[in-house]
Parts: sequence; structure tokens; C-alpha cells
Amino acid sequence: MKEKIRVVIWGLGSMGSGIANMILGKKGFKIVGAIDMDPNKVGKKLYEILGVEENEDNCCIVTKEPSEVIKRDFAEVCVIATASFTRVVFPLIKMAAEAGMDIVTTAEEMSYPRAQEPKLSEEMDKIAKENKVSILGTGVNPGFIMDLMVIMLTGVCDRVDSLEVSRINDLACFGKAVMVEQGIGLNKEEFIKGVKEDTVAGHVGFLESFGMIEEAFALKFNNIRQEKEPILTNVPRSTDIVSVSAGDVAGCRQVGYADLGDKLFVTMEHPQQIKPELEQVETGDYIKINGVPELNFQIKPEIPGGIATIAICVNMIPLVMNSEPGLKTMLDLPIPRAIIGDVRDLVKDRD
Amino acid sequence: MKEKIRVVIWGLGSMGSGIANMILGKKGFKIVGAIDMDPNKVGKKLYEILGVEENEDNCCIVTKEPSEVIKRDFAEVCVIATASFTRVVFPLIKMAAEAGMDIVTTAEEMSYPRAQEPKLSEEMDKIAKENKVSILGTGVNPGFIMDLMVIMLTGVCDRVDSLEVSRINDLACFGKAVMVEQGIGLNKEEFIKGVKEDTVAGHVGFLESFGMIEEAFALKFNNIRQEKEPILTNVPRSTDIVSVSAGDVAGCRQVGYADLGDKLFVTMEHPQQIKPELEQVETGDYIKINGVPELNFQIKPEIPGGIATIAICVNMIPLVMNSEPGLKTMLDLPIPRAIIGDVRDLVKDRD
Repeated sequence: MKEKIRVVIWGLGSMGSGIANMILGKKGFKIVGAIDMDPNKVGKKLYEILGVEENEDNCCIVTKEPSEVIKRDFAEVCVIATASFTRVVFPLIKMAAEAGMDIVTTAEEMSYPRAQEPKLSEEMDKIAKENKVSILGTGVNPGFIMDLMVIMLTGVCDRVDSLEVSRINDLACFGKAVMVEQGIGLNKEEFIKGVKEDTVAGHVGFLESFGMIEEAFALKFNNIRQEKEPILTNVPRSTDIVSVSAGDVAGCRQVGYADLGDKLFVTMEHPQQIKPELEQVETGDYIKINGVPELNFQIKPEIPGGIATIAICVNMIPLVMNSEPGLKTMLDLPIPRAIIGDVRDLVKDRD
Repeated sequence: MKEKIRVVIWGLGSMGSGIANMILGKKGFKIVGAIDMDPNKVGKKLYEILGVEENEDNCCIVTKEPSEVIKRDFAEVCVIATASFTRVVFPLIKMAAEAGMDIVTTAEEMSYPRAQEPKLSEEMDKIAKENKVSILGTGVNPGFIMDLMVIMLTGVCDRVDSLEVSRINDLACFGKAVMVEQGIGLNKEEFIKGVKEDTVAGHVGFLESFGMIEEAFALKFNNIRQEKEPILTNVPRSTDIVSVSAGDVAGCRQVGYADLGDKLFVTMEHPQQIKPELEQVETGDYIKINGVPELNFQIKPEIPGGIATIAICVNMIPLVMNSEPGLKTMLDLPIPRAIIGDVRDLVKDRD
């Protein structure tokens, strides 16, 4: 039997610990290191943090010192789930790559880092090749439903006139950080001020999705633009975390547009809110390809954001391990797929 | 400006001439050869057969002698659209590969030839590598909607318990050959006899789709089985080609199953019929992933079979040209995508 695939998890927030749990539920993985800054987690065994039974795959001690686990011959793979932005995860990626680890990250901007960080992207590609590792950012959005899936659907089209993509989702299950990022609970004026001052971040990913679509078609879009609007509720809406009065902000409706020549080519719409069902809003993922043939795609209810991002990060690990070295995107690798059996059966022979 | 990509089309039936038309509608292609056996086509110029205006990209003369156009340095790509079965297209593939051409074929079995022809597949892989070319079979089904798309959707799943795939389509636009293959117009007894004696072929592709799914997950299915049942109409249905009385066969409902261990894992259902709307049957493509998360996918109405198969064959040409040599499947190549701009922008530098 082949050796288990050794993984280091960098960041044990809701994504990182979800990823750790999923990895431990699969055959053929072992988590050999976990890094987090939270004093409540540091020094504990991983299985304690995750609240699962101890076994040989989950008993590493959580450290705040990366150098204790990010070192040569310690692991094959490092999963980085600490932040959304390329420039923030870059030093972590560099360190893991230089330790010879293949890397998967949840950082949204890393799903297509050339869109906003071309220089860092070039550097990551160079570091990856020098160290013979592959680096991939992925997630459900950006990384899958509003870009990769759209591109793939056009594969059965003779002509594509325009693309309309919409993801209507429910944020009720998320925590405080997401509520703040989306401006939920603010009044209209506070929301508008928050957008101006960048405290209401909204969805991070449209620029990355546009970039991936441009590369797929070898096109250059014009006039890429996006807007964030408050979703004002007509009825009170509340979760365990936040209570929103009628008239206030229950979510953030983000829209993005890109032109081809001077004609609108891509429309993206991503209203994210808590408890959409209270105003009879049905959640779902919708893609419309206007062209020949016209295609109307839906997944209803929407692909759930949290679990799906966790899953695609884990599922891509064997494909990243099999890849030739470099900075990769979902466009470069074979299509994602679930790990159903032993993950080692999906990994090509290692040298 | 780079030279245009030179293509030979082998077979000018409805698929082959559709492919020729689509290719000629794109920037950067030139059709330099066309092969067909039909005496009404041989000797004519391609543009006459296609009923389009003459230009420098479409004026080759249709030949029945493959050796006139399947020769070294004559074309980069050969598209083969003559038959459904690997053993029938194998000699054509061999000839084109030995002439140094990359190959795309519509042959259904070629979408996953290892399923039914493992020996020929090995031989094709060897020939492809010796001649530094790539060989791909594709189409909308098999090749896309009941296999590749199903696999891709599982990429956002932590757990997959079972897969249910259904494609409900309308055959009314197809010709005589398809009506005969599907047993349309027969009575129930004739249909059952036709299935036994293999004159009612039904859908060619379930075994290929199962094979592709097995490879994607590195699993081996048990008890793969399929059935063909007549779709008996309660009302008269007719097209230009065929008239079906109430009580007779308006289509073929093909179902396929595959077990994982001793548990049903994949269910495929593909009822193909003329004029389903006369009995309030709504056409569509449906995929249900039972697992975590559960996903309910639909494209409604269904991806239209003819134009979509033509499109995916053409759209895969640049990806086949970019591929390393060998016998390839849709699993090996990057995701399909439309050719929107100049196809040469999608092709990596050739040596």
C-alpha cells in the first residue's frame, strides 16, 4: 500500500477546519501539521479542535509557528485557508512552495490571481517551477459556478452572443465576519458609506471570474465594472448573529458587467442575503447562454457556498499533485470530481 | 499573421457537413480536403455541397479517395464523422494519424473507446504517440451531458451516494436513419424483436459514459446493465419523415444502471422520441447528485443533440492540437469552451 498523502492545514477558521474534517473523512490522507494564530487553538491536538475521535491521522498539535511544519519532506500538500487576498497569502504560499509542497488555497483572488496581481502571479509561477510544485486557488465562487461552469457550457455552442450568470444565495448560516463584510444589519446610508470606504467588501471574485473567462476565450473585455447595492428588506429578518429591521440592509446585491468591443457580453448578478425566503426569493444558480444553441441552466437551490468550497479545495488536491509545476488555475487542470474511493488511487505515481 | 489551421472533413453527412459549416463560420480555419462516398457529392466543390458562397477556405473538391487528402503536410486536423463504432472508424483514424494529423471524431464509442475496444484503444494510443498526434472522440452524449458534466458537478461534493442522470429529448428534427435506429413507427412486437436482433440500436453511449465515470473516480462498477423499452404513444404523432399511430412506437426509452459494490450507484435514463409535447412531456437534461451537498441540475429544454455535437467537435479542435500526443478523452483535456474569436489565438505555438 502506498504511503498516505501528508497534508498541512494553514488556518483553522470555518473553511480550514471544514477542510480538515473532510480530509480526515477520506481514505488515504493524513494531516501532519496545522497552523493557527488563535490562542484557544494553539497547543491543542487537532482532533480536539475538530471535536472528533483521536486517531493516527488527526493527532498533530496546532502550532502558531509555521516553520515547525512548513519544512522540507514534511508534507506533500499545504492547504492555505487564512485570507481572501493574494497579497496576504503570498508569503505563506512562498514559504510552503519553497518547502516543496503542492498548494491549494481558498483565497478568492487566487482563483485567478493574474486579474489583480500580475506581478505576484509571475513570481508565484517562478517559485512553483523552481521548487517543482503546483499552486491552485479554488472555491465554489470564484472558481466554479460563475466562471468555470459558464465556460464549460459554451463548449456545446456554435455561437455565443452574451452570457448571463446569476447566483442567488442565502447567508443565514454564516458568522459575524460575513455579516460585516456584506453590510447586513446596516441602514441604507451606512451601507453606501461602507461601500465607499471599503468596509463593506461584498463578494470578492467578479474580477477573477472575468479574468478566467477572458483567458478561456482568448479575448480581452472592455469596461469591466461592478456595483454593490443594498438589499433592503420589507420585513424583519434575523439569524442567531444579526437582526435586521424592516427597511434596513438584509444583504448585498453585487452586479458586474464586461463588454466585448462596445457590446455588453457578460452580466453577473450575485445578491447575497439572509433569509431570502421571507420575501419569497428563491435561491439558485442560473446561467443563460445567449447564442446558438441558447442554453438555460439552473441548480436550485444554489450550490451551498461553505460546504462546496471546502469540497472543491479537497477534491482538487490529487489533480494539483498530478499537475506539472507552476501557478495553475481551474482552466489548466482536468475537471474537478469528488474523491469517492481512496485518494491515493487518483494520484499518479510520484517520483 | 499565423497560417490558417487546415482541416480535412471525412464524411459529409448531417454531422460532417454541419461541422464543415461551423468551421467555415469561424476565423482562422481553412478546409483543405473533404471525403465522402456519395456519388452526388464526389467531384463537386465543398461550397456547392454546403450551399454557401465560394471563398478560398471552402473550395476544395470532394473526393472519394482518402489518399488524395490524407497525406503528410496536407492538414493539421482531420475530423471524422462517418460512423458510431470504434472498429469502423479505426482504419480511418490510423490513416489520418499516420499522416500526422490531429483527429476529432463524432463516433460515439470513441468518446470512451476503452469501454468496448480496449485493444484497439491501446493500438490507437501507440499510433498517436508514434506520430505525435492526439485523437479525441466527443459529442454532446456521450462526451458531455451524461458523463463529463456529471463528473464535474461532483467536484463540489464532499460525499456522493448516487448519481441520477436523465436526458429527455425530441428527435422530430432528425432524418430516416435515426428513426430506424430508434425503432420509431414500429409496433410494440416489432420493436421488441428489433431490440433482440439489434436492428433497433437505440442510444450508443451508456457503456462509454459509465467507463468515463469509472475512470474519473478511479472506481470499478459492478453489474453494468441497460435496457431499451418502446415509448408507446397514446396519440398519433408524425414528422415529415414518419407517421406513428396511437399505440405504436414513438421512441426508445433507454435506461442504464451501474452498481458500486452491491449498491446502485448510477442511474441513466434517456427516452428519445418524436414530438414529446403531444403528450405533455417536457424535454430537458437533469442531473441529481445524491450526497453532501445534494445538487439538482437542469438544462431546459435539453441541449439540442445535433448542433451541440457539431459545436463540441469543432470547439475541441484547438484543445486537441494543444494536447500532448496520445489517445485522449474529454477527461484528459481542459474543459471545452466556445471558439468566439480567432481560433489561432487558442492554439499554442506549433513547432
